[in-house]
Amino acid sequence: MLIETPLSDSASDAEHGVTSRRAFLRTATFTAAGAAALAACGKDASAKPSAADPHAVAATPVAAAAATPASIRAAADAMDAMHEKGIKCFPAKTAGLGNQLMAPKLVNGVKVYDLTASEIQWEVAPGQMVAAMAYNGQVPGPQIRVREGDRVRINLKNELKQSTAIHMHGVELPNDMDGVPFITQPPVKPGESFTYEFTAPVGNAGSHMYHSHHNSATQVGLGLLGAFIIEPKTPRPIEKVAQDYVLILNDGMHGFTINGKGFPATQPFTAKLGDKIRIRYMNEGMMIHPMHLHGMHMTVIDKDGWAQPQPWKCDTLNIAPGERWDVIINCNNPGTWAFHCHILGHAETEHGMFGMVTALVVSK
Amino acid sequence: MLIETPLSDSASDAEHGVTSRRAFLRTATFTAAGAAALAACGKDASAKPSAADPHAVAATPVAAAAATPASIRAAADAMDAMHEKGIKCFPAKTAGLGNQLMAPKLVNGVKVYDLTASEIQWEVAPGQMVAAMAYNGQVPGPQIRVREGDRVRINLKNELKQSTAIHMHGVELPNDMDGVPFITQPPVKPGESFTYEFTAPVGNAGSHMYHSHHNSATQVGLGLLGAFIIEPKTPRPIEKVAQDYVLILNDGMHGFTINGKGFPATQPFTAKLGDKIRIRYMNEGMMIHPMHLHGMHMTVIDKDGWAQPQPWKCDTLNIAPGERWDVIINCNNPGTWAFHCHILGHAETEHGMFGMVTALVVSK
Amino acid sequence: MLIETPLSDSASDAEHGVTSRRAFLRTATFTAAGAAALAACGKDASAKPSAADPHAVAATPVAAAAATPASIRAAADAMDAMHEKGIKCFPAKTAGLGNQLMAPKLVNGVKVYDLTASEIQWEVAPGQMVAAMAYNGQVPGPQIRVREGDRVRINLKNELKQSTAIHMHGVELPNDMDGVPFITQPPVKPGESFTYEFTAPVGNAGSHMYHSHHNSATQVGLGLLGAFIIEPKTPRPIEKVAQDYVLILNDGMHGFTINGKGFPATQPFTAKLGDKIRIRYMNEGMMIHPMHLHGMHMTVIDKDGWAQPQPWKCDTLNIAPGERWDVIINCNNPGTWAFHCHILGHAETEHGMFGMVTALVVSK
Repeated sequence: MLIETPLSDSASDAEHGVTSRRAFLRTATFTAAGAAALAACGKDASAKPSAADPHAVAATPVAAAAATPASIRAAADAMDAMHEKGIKCFPAKTAGLGNQLMAPKLVNGVKVYDLTASEIQWEVAPGQMVAAMAYNGQVPGPQIRVREGDRVRINLKNELKQSTAIHMHGVELPNDMDGVPFITQPPVKPGESFTYEFTAPVGNAGSHMYHSHHNSATQVGLGLLGAFIIEPKTPRPIEKVAQDYVLILNDGMHGFTINGKGFPATQPFTAKLGDKIRIRYMNEGMMIHPMHLHGMHMTVIDKDGWAQPQPWKCDTLNIAPGERWDVIINCNNPGTWAFHCHILGHAETEHGMFGMVTALVVSK
Repeated sequence: MLIETPLSDSASDAEHGVTSRRAFLRTATFTAAGAAALAACGKDASAKPSAADPHAVAATPVAAAAATPASIRAAADAMDAMHEKGIKCFPAKTAGLGNQLMAPKLVNGVKVYDLTASEIQWEVAPGQMVAAMAYNGQVPGPQIRVREGDRVRINLKNELKQSTAIHMHGVELPNDMDGVPFITQPPVKPGESFTYEFTAPVGNAGSHMYHSHHNSATQVGLGLLGAFIIEPKTPRPIEKVAQDYVLILNDGMHGFTINGKGFPATQPFTAKLGDKIRIRYMNEGMMIHPMHLHGMHMTVIDKDGWAQPQPWKCDTLNIAPGERWDVIINCNNPGTWAFHCHILGHAETEHGMFGMVTALVVSK
Repeated sequence: MLIETPLSDSASDAEHGVTSRRAFLRTATFTAAGAAALAACGKDASAKPSAADPHAVAATPVAAAAATPASIRAAADAMDAMHEKGIKCFPAKTAGLGNQLMAPKLVNGVKVYDLTASEIQWEVAPGQMVAAMAYNGQVPGPQIRVREGDRVRINLKNELKQSTAIHMHGVELPNDMDGVPFITQPPVKPGESFTYEFTAPVGNAGSHMYHSHHNSATQVGLGLLGAFIIEPKTPRPIEKVAQDYVLILNDGMHGFTINGKGFPATQPFTAKLGDKIRIRYMNEGMMIHPMHLHGMHMTVIDKDGWAQPQPWKCDTLNIAPGERWDVIINCNNPGTWAFHCHILGHAETEHGMFGMVTALVVSK
């Protein structure tokens, strides 16, 4: 998920940018309270507050525990233990990572991407296996990054039990490459293939998507989607960032997910203090998701790949289905920051956080 | 629905701008694949891809059909046939067209519009009759276009079985013309009439709406709504377009509709290559609808009739209930382009496209 | 709810700004029809139109009543009587008012706010008592207003039966003051307390919120939320307004509410003709609410406390969960104006208006 050199033209393998849980925890240890919480994943959840947190110490003695009946305290402790358990497991290890940067094959100057659609089992959260449709076994499918003017070929092989097709959402292509069965092409039947070939339009750089446009409520809901990013020939100064992240929202049959996983299996976004990072929000679901970042604001630069007339600031950005919004975050506040959909029912129950919750970790 | 001379002051009859299916198909034949698909409406659906489409030819031989069990292929073919059937029927003929431009009577310099609210049966999609409440038998009601400074009189006659009233949504009128029963006027009882008379405020040009403001969740959901457009005395250069379209969204008791019809009975929007067209989005429903246009972007110019500080671009525009958004499309990409709500559940099921789906047809 | 001197630094008591029903009605009497409707609260609802309203007089004789069967008229009258009853009761008196400006204690230059979270019964609409969680017995909690650079201390006492914590939504605080249990602090157990202390960041002025960040879908849905406003050291000219109002939306277990009450118990917003007023919209719910004002437009100045690059105008503003939007209204149109969420199902049923409905009353 994490792209270390996003504006580089060089291809990298499918493993590129994977942040291991171990590496994340190394990064996170600068925050004593956060580290205490995050380091205990897999161990018995301990409800004891970290001694390194002065507020934890302060919290206990202010009111006499005796004033609260033991049964109420026990019920609160039981609820809190469930909350703590989820957070201590974050980022929880699950099989499979989606949205991995895909290296093209170069064939006579054409960037060639082979995408196979098939039915898989996907571990959306620890131990929670769901039926999925996936490109190359990933949900979201592999991240495709090309540059304005690149010649691009996408070989779609359909190993599903139903027909499919790919629409490049936001990319202004010739009509016969638009990927809508019976309007611009025939459906790609089970066992068959189809080749999309086009030039990434100059002037159409930005954050786009590819996804099924056949039986799409089902196929996209099950995972046939991915980021299609066209990098500009000449990036704007505001685009020069330390990290360039994609954050794809979905709310289909897999529940509420960020990049194909629900909390605590979501991956954190990381930055060093002082970094500017970019988040490319993409909504592949059927509901709005107002994404809220704690601790720092976001500067909105692009809508659907098009520059806004002027950048503008917010801390909660409403992403509607089909929309892409690009923001820059000036990571000037160290710590582990909650980062979640602010429809609270997409993020937390009485059993703790779930679904569309992740963190931005700013390390000193 | 299609307004050929939208900025003209001259009135036209209720038939003005109706695009017949025959005329549409003439326009559409420039796209071989699209024409093949669209031309077969009413015939047996043929699943054979058009020979005129090179990709259709390419699609078949890449993988040996033998690799796929016949039962899977048959199931896929059955699903595809349902999808194809809907698209081949588009634009399907149904009884009644809403949003027809209404010519006023001129009485002593006043533009007079007679609106009768009554209960009707409305064919929302082929063969699908629904109970509706309508102004002058149309869903949406007749399109009203006046000019800044015009004196306007609306004679409402209530032939419903319940009281009603009309609110001019977005128009800054004197309080007693605001149309809210028990706050600004008494309800208009069954069998009674009420006259609204006002001057279209100078400085308040743009895309507005009229609709019931009494038992409104029901009455607007059933069809008591329409476009109320105030044309500016001095249009901005960006407003000089070849076609000026209204696109009203609703999601009440008639399901997901565009201008009162669900796909395949929705009407396509048409343009000639190189045309600039305007779409006036209006949401009369209770849900958001992020409208996505394929093949070209949209330049947003107005919100609720008010110019945005600067135009901005997108391909997916989220229209919330009560909002109006005006966009300009530079039709520089020929073809038949899917144009739909990107909440995929409002646009497609396993049985094919339905509801909030239409097309923008750009002919050479 | 009504803050008469919002930019003043002086503290006022919890009663400050409460508009009594009597005072409201005095203000409202300039509109004959409105006054007739509004003055009858508590009396038998009379369906007779006011003689002071010329349209009421006009409405009756146009169609002969004989044309409408008596049973239809009776059914319409019965429905209308329910609608009228709600409007005549507005603003209905209920026990408790939320969002009352809270005066801090000043302790060595620190503004100290004591907030106690407890379970209460809340009268959300006349006679409708609901279980709530509240800060200091108010839903929303007390309105907190500080100034950029102020030192602020919030003493949270938890008298709930479950743990809690407070997140200052939109305020860029040091990580250990961010209020997220197990990430930035331990949960505050029943009977315990926790102190948040920080400097209101300079450059972070605007409309923010405080709310629970523990079991938040439940706790915020039940009322643990409030406005946290940071006033700028140097207000912009556009911020100099006659009235500065907060309008908090919620859609949790209490139904659709504005500042903790459903219509007709919502409080009207009032202005004198020619006043500029500010509305600070805050959405603490889980759904969008496109707020529509009749009669006048709104000029949007801030998003989440951050100035938009340029102000822009609308009459329907979509507020998503977690968002804050600040608008200026130039009250140049006298009358009692409906002001409501335009998701009509959040505002009206066949029994009349309810939920997210209030009024802006502009008096001469």
